[in-house]
Amino acid sequence: MIGALLCIGHELIYGRIVNENAKLAGEVLSAYGFKLGEVVVVPDEILLIVKALRRLVDEYEFLIVSGGLGPTDDDLTVAAVSQAFSLELEENREVLLALLKAKDYVQSFDLAKRLALLPKGSVSLSPDLTMAGFKLTLKGKPIFFLPGVPSQFESLLKNKVLPELLNLWPEAKGEEIVILRFFDLNETDLNTFLRNFLSDVAKEELKKNVELGFYPEDPEVKLILHGKKEAIREVKKGLQERFRFQYIGEGDKSLPIVLGELLTERGKKIATAESCTGGKLASLITSVPGSSNYFDRGFVVYSEKSKVEILGVSEETIKRYSVYSHETALEMAEKTLAKSKADFSLATTGIAGPTGETDDLPVGTIFIALGTKTKAISVRFKFTGKRSFIQKIASYTALDMLRRYLIYGEGLSCYRFALEFKERSF
Amino acid sequence: MIGALLCIGHELIYGRIVNENAKLAGEVLSAYGFKLGEVVVVPDEILLIVKALRRLVDEYEFLIVSGGLGPTDDDLTVAAVSQAFSLELEENREVLLALLKAKDYVQSFDLAKRLALLPKGSVSLSPDLTMAGFKLTLKGKPIFFLPGVPSQFESLLKNKVLPELLNLWPEAKGEEIVILRFFDLNETDLNTFLRNFLSDVAKEELKKNVELGFYPEDPEVKLILHGKKEAIREVKKGLQERFRFQYIGEGDKSLPIVLGELLTERGKKIATAESCTGGKLASLITSVPGSSNYFDRGFVVYSEKSKVEILGVSEETIKRYSVYSHETALEMAEKTLAKSKADFSLATTGIAGPTGETDDLPVGTIFIALGTKTKAISVRFKFTGKRSFIQKIASYTALDMLRRYLIYGEGLSCYRFALEFKERSF
Repeated sequence: MIGALLCIGHELIYGRIVNENAKLAGEVLSAYGFKLGEVVVVPDEILLIVKALRRLVDEYEFLIVSGGLGPTDDDLTVAAVSQAFSLELEENREVLLALLKAKDYVQSFDLAKRLALLPKGSVSLSPDLTMAGFKLTLKGKPIFFLPGVPSQFESLLKNKVLPELLNLWPEAKGEEIVILRFFDLNETDLNTFLRNFLSDVAKEELKKNVELGFYPEDPEVKLILHGKKEAIREVKKGLQERFRFQYIGEGDKSLPIVLGELLTERGKKIATAESCTGGKLASLITSVPGSSNYFDRGFVVYSEKSKVEILGVSEETIKRYSVYSHETALEMAEKTLAKSKADFSLATTGIAGPTGETDDLPVGTIFIALGTKTKAISVRFKFTGKRSFIQKIASYTALDMLRRYLIYGEGLSCYRFALEFKERSF
Repeated sequence: MIGALLCIGHELIYGRIVNENAKLAGEVLSAYGFKLGEVVVVPDEILLIVKALRRLVDEYEFLIVSGGLGPTDDDLTVAAVSQAFSLELEENREVLLALLKAKDYVQSFDLAKRLALLPKGSVSLSPDLTMAGFKLTLKGKPIFFLPGVPSQFESLLKNKVLPELLNLWPEAKGEEIVILRFFDLNETDLNTFLRNFLSDVAKEELKKNVELGFYPEDPEVKLILHGKKEAIREVKKGLQERFRFQYIGEGDKSLPIVLGELLTERGKKIATAESCTGGKLASLITSVPGSSNYFDRGFVVYSEKSKVEILGVSEETIKRYSVYSHETALEMAEKTLAKSKADFSLATTGIAGPTGETDDLPVGTIFIALGTKTKAISVRFKFTGKRSFIQKIASYTALDMLRRYLIYGEGLSCYRFALEFKERSF
């Protein structure tokens, strides 16, 4: 099952953007046992696209094409396919009707007609037609045409292309695929564990029957197990035992969703007070549909003054311990509970960078506190990376602290990036 | 002067890393008027490398190869070149002596001998031999072999490859690349304008001298102009006149950065009150380093109760007009100013979905209000898309409302997705 990826676009060939789609396709396909023999990038020029299409369809077992499906003049993919394989274009009525329903095309019948003109034999990949994307079978080989916009490329690749490929190659189909999600886990640690676990002589059989793919989805890590059901079950058990705190769950549920389900199950509410994460934490919580069931307010107390005026943190605490301290974080968590009547609170304060560091407090120093009815717990972290990554990992860590607390009632002091820990009972 | 880039490496084909070298080469070469007709990525497999080398040397005028020059077993480039073009390997004495002088190879004579074995006719590209990298001339065409390590690739590309290419094709001279950013602009509108603008007979020359690339960076749109300086200037002027409100600026500065610079310049501060955007708006503002200069607090008033308790929105207003209304948005904006002493406030309330819609208020209905010292302005929008996209575009639109207000003092009612408009003076 060796295929190729063809990426079309001036923006790629002129280096205006990095090729995220190529990285994603490589990652996702190899995790499922499919291999890319070649990734080819060509500009928006019809002759170069035609040449690449002909060659890749000849040489590989499947082909994924990215880009050039939009309505503008430099979108040439459909015309190139038609020319490369002498395929007439015909109006896809289903696509046309859907386009005409969409507001954007109501006043632009010609444009809709142009977008609905697809090579003969095309099947739409987006049944609700919210995206471009179609499939053709040429010389008995599946050819997938996906939009170049990364979010759309990813969605169709994972939800349409991958299932079709798995369906076409039954040797892959008879097997099982399980996705396990972890947080606060180094790929290296995971890999070391697996190597040791699988090198055991008694597990020789296991090793042959399961393939592993790593898929970092910052800041989470996905591990894709692919192979025989029994083998997968055993490896999964080993992982869950070894990485009890880090294991978030199975499937595509990310941390904000997992935490949301836990809070909903238990009928508990949460409130937030953010300094350095600046709204990111609340934004992650409210990204989940139905989050109004467990989240009703948050405070973005970015300046010192706002911490005092809005939350009522004492100026004395800030002056004595600094605004970046366990004491300030604990008080933020405590006051947030009072200001919200929530069952739990999460508070963040620290230095996301790139400026603002002191001798004692380097960039990446973040205090995260969890408040409950009876106590508050603050953990000091030292994260590394760019501002946006530090804000993101700090927000995810805050969510995960509450997850660990709800499930285990412990484990808050043993994060990879945790330095120290302080608790205060009310 | 059309060439190709061949990148060799498992790490690229399996998506472990993004292809930074391809982006860099595209950028650097096109800036100097050289064009890549194709970028090809292949894994560390000798047959695939041989096949790609032969084809690309045949089809293009120059070739740059990245990767596979190191000392490990999966470094196959030299062997592949030898096989592809029936070139004997011979010991390059200059390279060998330099390697033996280097500390790393003192104790590894065999390894040094192996690295000094290059295809007959090779000329080293790194005269001090601190890096691998050599040039061959095959079928009269220059072929450059560079290390895959991005810093080394960049150094040799800029300091060796580019001067050689400019020497070979003296007619190549610097063209220009300009990136323009827009918000609230349909790709289709932009394209229609450009087609009309460039179809003017008087502008026949212009059309030949500028190439255009679209790149949506949701929810912004980037337009990349590439070509002769004069032509670019003229097209740019036309765009700025036609899309005055939508034009954000030049280069890589996204809306949160542009707004941050405007606020910093004018010494103004902003505060936020978010319902449906749930922290996303504050998070965008605080994603910018130095945002503490113009943002000191925000309120995530997700529930009705929190709007009343935290901001002081009157229960009467919510009961009479609904929580999703101009009146509630205007009051949120007004109260946020009072609670923060900021110069401007932005408030959002609406239905991000997927549930919660009523007959009058479909999913995607969002009221965004801007508060100033003298008045508040609320705009009702109807966005389309998934929850995450609606939250994102609503947050960007809020930022853009303030940007338009600061620059033009108008233009708030003419967004593509705006339905109606309400203003209240204080």
